[in-house]
Amino acid sequence: MPLVAPRVIAVAGASTSGNAQGNTFLRQLEEAGFDGTVVVIHPSATSVDGYAAVPSLADVPETVDYAYVAVPSRSVPALIASGAGRVRFAQVISSGFGEGDGVGVDLANELLRVARETGTRIVGPNSLGTHSPRGGMSFVGGASAPDGTISVASQSGGLSVDMIRRGRSLGLDFRSVVSVGNALDVDPIELAEYYLADPGTTAIGLYLEYLPDGRRFVDLLRRSAGTKPIVVLKGGLTAQGNRAAASHTGAAATDERLWRGLARQFGITLVETMDEYLHSLLAFQDLARAPRANARDVVLLGNGGGVSVLAADQFARADLAVPPVSDELLRAAETIPFPPGASVLNPIDLPAGVFASEGGALCESLLRLVLERDAPGGIVVHLNLGAMLQGPVYLAGFRGFLTAALPMLREHRDQSLPVLVLNSDGSAEADELRRSLTSEAREWRIPVVTGFAGAIRILSTLYEHESRMLHTEATTSVG
Amino acid sequence: MPLVAPRVIAVAGASTSGNAQGNTFLRQLEEAGFDGTVVVIHPSATSVDGYAAVPSLADVPETVDYAYVAVPSRSVPALIASGAGRVRFAQVISSGFGEGDGVGVDLANELLRVARETGTRIVGPNSLGTHSPRGGMSFVGGASAPDGTISVASQSGGLSVDMIRRGRSLGLDFRSVVSVGNALDVDPIELAEYYLADPGTTAIGLYLEYLPDGRRFVDLLRRSAGTKPIVVLKGGLTAQGNRAAASHTGAAATDERLWRGLARQFGITLVETMDEYLHSLLAFQDLARAPRANARDVVLLGNGGGVSVLAADQFARADLAVPPVSDELLRAAETIPFPPGASVLNPIDLPAGVFASEGGALCESLLRLVLERDAPGGIVVHLNLGAMLQGPVYLAGFRGFLTAALPMLREHRDQSLPVLVLNSDGSAEADELRRSLTSEAREWRIPVVTGFAGAIRILSTLYEHESRMLHTEATTSVG
Repeated sequence: MPLVAPRVIAVAGASTSGNAQGNTFLRQLEEAGFDGTVVVIHPSATSVDGYAAVPSLADVPETVDYAYVAVPSRSVPALIASGAGRVRFAQVISSGFGEGDGVGVDLANELLRVARETGTRIVGPNSLGTHSPRGGMSFVGGASAPDGTISVASQSGGLSVDMIRRGRSLGLDFRSVVSVGNALDVDPIELAEYYLADPGTTAIGLYLEYLPDGRRFVDLLRRSAGTKPIVVLKGGLTAQGNRAAASHTGAAATDERLWRGLARQFGITLVETMDEYLHSLLAFQDLARAPRANARDVVLLGNGGGVSVLAADQFARADLAVPPVSDELLRAAETIPFPPGASVLNPIDLPAGVFASEGGALCESLLRLVLERDAPGGIVVHLNLGAMLQGPVYLAGFRGFLTAALPMLREHRDQSLPVLVLNSDGSAEADELRRSLTSEAREWRIPVVTGFAGAIRILSTLYEHESRMLHTEATTSVG
Repeated sequence: MPLVAPRVIAVAGASTSGNAQGNTFLRQLEEAGFDGTVVVIHPSATSVDGYAAVPSLADVPETVDYAYVAVPSRSVPALIASGAGRVRFAQVISSGFGEGDGVGVDLANELLRVARETGTRIVGPNSLGTHSPRGGMSFVGGASAPDGTISVASQSGGLSVDMIRRGRSLGLDFRSVVSVGNALDVDPIELAEYYLADPGTTAIGLYLEYLPDGRRFVDLLRRSAGTKPIVVLKGGLTAQGNRAAASHTGAAATDERLWRGLARQFGITLVETMDEYLHSLLAFQDLARAPRANARDVVLLGNGGGVSVLAADQFARADLAVPPVSDELLRAAETIPFPPGASVLNPIDLPAGVFASEGGALCESLLRLVLERDAPGGIVVHLNLGAMLQGPVYLAGFRGFLTAALPMLREHRDQSLPVLVLNSDGSAEADELRRSLTSEAREWRIPVVTGFAGAIRILSTLYEHESRMLHTEATTSVG
């Protein structure tokens, strides 16, 4: 689709002095590696920032796949009209079309009329546009991101930037993120329909404050059931949040029960915070597998007795079982020459000194036993970065363990969903180590989080999705 | 008390080769700035790591305030006996006294008998000891920490290290943290009694897996009511966590309802995770004030429309109101020449460009209006670090705003409880900026957190504590 992989881009709103929004867009195209044709629309210049410039959209020799429009709001309709029939998508970043204070509603109607007449689809107004690594475009500066399989539509520009930036730290790779702005024309439901049909998209993320057309959304959910996971971050589920959404995007009143009902009925993953949203998408990106029944049991393996107790509490509150390991495993573990302090029940508590002994090999043996003998539904390995930084022997032990553990966790992922929890104390040293170990783990596509809440979210998202899919299959086979 | 501010320390378990646990303790004393007398107990050497060594506790010329004991478990009772009447506290780090697997219960009984006979109080066994900046001691390596007003007793050594390390990043300063280990003799309730009477302690933190004596604890709570905040992180509140606690500290079954009842009745702050615990203690450290009634209203001021909507939802779920600002404030705010995009309702949404304009002065004016005209119960300023890093104009605007905002927030803290939320995308750049802005804000004692959950915890902890205190006062005046 030209919206996410255009070949010809026109830019209206770049200046010869290089300071306008259009110049930023040009710079971002370069950084993201766009390799198609770029033409600047400028009243007088013949070149802007090294790109050929023409006075009007009508002067672009080819059909324009994507027009970037950053001119004053009152000039937007005429600009779109001038491209009559030759512009497929126009992303309007300009605001002043009725959002927030309601000023500019007439202008919005005029823009929509012109768009319908000319056959140009409008993204926005008030839209940051498209982030698409394979299309070589991004509204977030910096080097080109890796192409991914997650596609997103967002009713907040700021949050779509956050998703991309924070997603990058988590190892979440997007296929496309479209900021729909006011969604005058192209709306999030249409994008979701496109993503559902797109073979390169494996999971869909939506940030929604309101639904332009509830019935169309329900139809979409009905068709999607079970085929592709959909994660919805709904802003304004509470009355208080809804009031804030009304002043942000003009959202109408939302009924939380309605959304919970939709989620239950159609198997969407409905989440409440950006963290939950990103962790749910990460779960689908990294760990999607054929559904397994009754897989809510988890083995916790890491260092710290107190932290294991608190984690067991936290998992219990999320309805995730941390049951004792099997007697068979306990007997087999007795052959591992652990120094004192190791506790091999579940939670498995291995003090830092145990990780340090034999360069991590003892803990590696135990993890292998867990994966091969008990094969729990999930395996959460949690490591304390402060403990690693106590001295070189400790760091070597933990690193040695991880080097062996990561491929093992990856190999058994269809049986035991793996998550690595790296607990930082917030110091510069610990944060640097966290980033380095995270990038090592990401090479094996093991999800890495800080704190247990992220691990719980990842496992719960998948378990709930799988149980819905099994339920759907069962219903289908009966019917 | 000699346990937290000893003048004479004896160390048993340091070797001349410098590799034993005792040597680590000696190094940590030096790093923490201990300036009293140190004597090493060594069978043959006359000096260890530069300290004078004698063969037995009986040979130390002065009364020993604090003996550090890291010898094999079977030798501990005899060692304590040898100090008959001349050792006040002995911290036993050695394990093997019945914890975990139950091996060594007889040895524990013998140790207790010897301690009673000699009049030496035992901390541990299996205890990391005391962290006390004013005492110049710590079981966490590194430079001396600032002296604080928060005192802690912990039934987990690992978690007490985490508290100190993560507390340091948050700006939480401890007066003392005592790891009680098996609590054979000195137990967390006795420490809490001491902290209650200690004028230098303003709030008490407890990590508990079990209560050695429920009745004594209830007596303590009854006496403390309202005088000093007590924050309890209870490990093993759920059945699953309790099973883990049983294998960690031998905790007996816990009834969650019992704990909730105690918390309600005696006004303790009962929390479930380490984050909640640290944020609650930070709230009492930084923002304790005379209780205000009906103060659950909060103004959210920061950048991002979508993030404001989600935050309003999150606050609503925690029963914190984000009500519209007053009409008077709205009218006054009209005189501030904001560029388009600012929304002055509550949540107050100021795009990054608004922070950038006039070096942050416009946002500063608005914050002043909020604090002076509406004086809400709480003010949460949330800033997106990624937005600051878009370019020097943005960074200068946000920094300019903060430079003016921090003293203003501090000045109004008794009226409007302030929290600064710095949202990082997890990149090295953002984390570095977070640390730098955090240390700036800490100079004004403004609590700084990442994510809204921490802000909610800080405000809820104080609002709940204040409402309990008001209730107590009301009851008292009626009675």
